[in-house]
Amino acid sequence: MASFQLLLTLHAMPYKTQAPQSAQAVSPAHHAADDDSVDPVLAGYRKSIDNIDAALIHMLAERFRITKAVGEYKAKVTLPPADPDREKRQIARLRALSEAADLDPEFSEKFLRFIIDEVIRHHERARES
Amino acid sequence: MASFQLLLTLHAMPYKTQAPQSAQAVSPAHHAADDDSVDPVLAGYRKSIDNIDAALIHMLAERFRITKAVGEYKAKVTLPPADPDREKRQIARLRALSEAADLDPEFSEKFLRFIIDEVIRHHERARES
Repeated sequence: MASFQLLLTLHAMPYKTQAPQSAQAVSPAHHAADDDSVDPVLAGYRKSIDNIDAALIHMLAERFRITKAVGEYKAKVTLPPADPDREKRQIARLRALSEAADLDPEFSEKFLRFIIDEVIRHHERARES
Repeated sequence: MASFQLLLTLHAMPYKTQAPQSAQAVSPAHHAADDDSVDPVLAGYRKSIDNIDAALIHMLAERFRITKAVGEYKAKVTLPPADPDREKRQIARLRALSEAADLDPEFSEKFLRFIIDEVIRHHERARES
């Protein structure tokens, strides 16, 4: 229904850039691209970005589920929380994957660091509680 | 072959934590978890993490392909590079998706900010070249 309305709107006024007039209800089913006043080509790109972002969020949610289990398991069998050799292998692998996918390898290393820092914060919070 | 060797190794020595003796060739086909000396439960978790990381890297590569096209399109039709209303909708949507997936909504907002900062850096680099 929303996309049918969008289609009608796009036919009626294909190029309008002012901000939407009303605040929009937000639910996970909505696309953040659901703004009828936007350029139609841009709206198409934004739908793709929103789909990818939903996939990223769900992948990250699953990754943190696993690292939580890893933290609990390491505590149980008294393995050290950090493993620098494993981290080096992860970075080297992600850099190689990034080059193959035409993504900046520097960014992939920064990204892994960003994620690992969050994992460490989770572990610290778990220890405190 | 590698997993068969891993299986043999795990049967022969199921619990050994010292660092691997030899440097390992890195290729995208390798898992960063491919370290025969690691605890088998931990090795299983790590294979899952490596699969998820590969998915994340490929999703991010595709996302940056699209934002690159968006940057070029916006320059062509003279749309402003930033859209604060769109960003607000993206943040609200990712927070809602995160709550449904049991991921910290604060983290998802930080994550989107991290990605958008990289997109801006890409646009700046594109303008300079």
